[in-house]
Amino acid sequence: MNFGVVAIVGAGLIGGSIGLGLKERGLATSVIGVGHRKTSIDKALKINAIDEGTLKAEEAVKQADIIILATSVSLIPDYAEKIIPLMKKSAILTDVGSTKDYIVSQINDKIRSQYDGVPPDFIGAHPLAGSEQRGIESARPDLFDGSVCVLTPTTLNIKENIKKLSDMWQALGAEVSIMSPSEHDEILAFVSHLPHFVASILAGVVKEKHWKFAASGLRDTTRIASGDPELWLSISRQNKEKIIDALRCFSEDVKSTLDDLEHGNDNNVLEKLIKAKTVRDKKKWKQE
Amino acid sequence: MNFGVVAIVGAGLIGGSIGLGLKERGLATSVIGVGHRKTSIDKALKINAIDEGTLKAEEAVKQADIIILATSVSLIPDYAEKIIPLMKKSAILTDVGSTKDYIVSQINDKIRSQYDGVPPDFIGAHPLAGSEQRGIESARPDLFDGSVCVLTPTTLNIKENIKKLSDMWQALGAEVSIMSPSEHDEILAFVSHLPHFVASILAGVVKEKHWKFAASGLRDTTRIASGDPELWLSISRQNKEKIIDALRCFSEDVKSTLDDLEHGNDNNVLEKLIKAKTVRDKKKWKQE
Repeated sequence: MNFGVVAIVGAGLIGGSIGLGLKERGLATSVIGVGHRKTSIDKALKINAIDEGTLKAEEAVKQADIIILATSVSLIPDYAEKIIPLMKKSAILTDVGSTKDYIVSQINDKIRSQYDGVPPDFIGAHPLAGSEQRGIESARPDLFDGSVCVLTPTTLNIKENIKKLSDMWQALGAEVSIMSPSEHDEILAFVSHLPHFVASILAGVVKEKHWKFAASGLRDTTRIASGDPELWLSISRQNKEKIIDALRCFSEDVKSTLDDLEHGNDNNVLEKLIKAKTVRDKKKWKQE
Repeated sequence: MNFGVVAIVGAGLIGGSIGLGLKERGLATSVIGVGHRKTSIDKALKINAIDEGTLKAEEAVKQADIIILATSVSLIPDYAEKIIPLMKKSAILTDVGSTKDYIVSQINDKIRSQYDGVPPDFIGAHPLAGSEQRGIESARPDLFDGSVCVLTPTTLNIKENIKKLSDMWQALGAEVSIMSPSEHDEILAFVSHLPHFVASILAGVVKEKHWKFAASGLRDTTRIASGDPELWLSISRQNKEKIIDALRCFSEDVKSTLDDLEHGNDNNVLEKLIKAKTVRDKKKWKQE
């Protein structure tokens, strides 16, 4: 399997790991990295995540067969607007953003619809790995092994291109799951965006002088609260309604637990603790 | 420094690590383990966490200078009631339980107050390490290095005994912090008990079919929800009022975040995300 020339815009943990995975498994004719700082390009070259790097998107895009937008979610639509007119007609544009409805509708409705003639294909994607955003230093060729990658194609997409992108993610080690952008956003609101806001609210409620007494419980529950605030503001804007729904649902369960504790409903308290433990213990985590 | 004969009741992660730490650092004349199953005594002997083991508390207690109750919080008062009449007058009874007000008042008010003559000293303690309760398999002699151990003496205690227990915990590697049982419980409600209920509620709100799409964010925020439900029910009973206060405080912040999201108050959302990240990043965690 060979996916031709692959351009990766944004050389962080995800972009870098895609590059490493493609190169180590011989899946691309060449991997070109596009960055907006020379230092990040140099780092990607140094760890061999890309074959060549450039600060100019045009140079990479015009020869690429697959272009992957691996930047922060807030920048994806603007990059797409800039890149689509430069693409080969047969090329596929895709992304790795944590929200899908906003990005897919922005790119399909506003950008591709204004295109003269048949626009190149954009297929939304979201590999569910490495939410900590630790940068290219943590990139690994096997980051996606055993993970899930969600693809959110629409009726506008060409079937062969969906197949090609799906094959690429499978070749990188991921299980591919295809769903609508809206369904993706509803699920991610619960399994990723809600946990972030919960961790952040929890960290915010602990008095500064009390952190001295915190052990591994608070450390683990609040770990993701150390994520990039600007990134999470963008995610909260792009998936606003679904995050609100999830947080409301969570808030109701907080109230009902409060009610159980206040009224000494020990059976309910125990039942909820057991239910939560049971459902969590069923999941096979990649590392734990 | 030598703390004489130390009896440890309950050979789990904490009890086992105390034994290993005392023995490795030559801090005790001998360490006697008391268990209610022969298999757990055998495991403790095998990893050299104790010098001898017994299923009969009497045997160990009558010769001990320090007796440490390292069982589940729900069993501590009953064990104390059984043990206090068997103790040497000069010996110290202590525990490692996650709640202090209930345990200290039960033991001081109900058990020691009924004692004929001057009762042996009971000093509440709580080493803040290893909330995951992973059993003696995870016990380590350096578990308490760099951790905090809270002691909650009362006016009933003999000063020399508080000093001796404090010395023991420092010799095991912990920084000792002395406060009232009530202050301990208020702090722990926020840094330990609240995170547990939050993690559990979060795990409970995620639909079973959606766990497939969960990555490291949900894994970390819900890790402690895999803890022992019965233990956490006991903790919620023993520290009920303070846990309710903490959960109410958290619930208010959930509502205010919901309000910010619903009204598109991006500045507030960002400010809270930054505040939570800042306060969390300041803490030096033992492992991360």
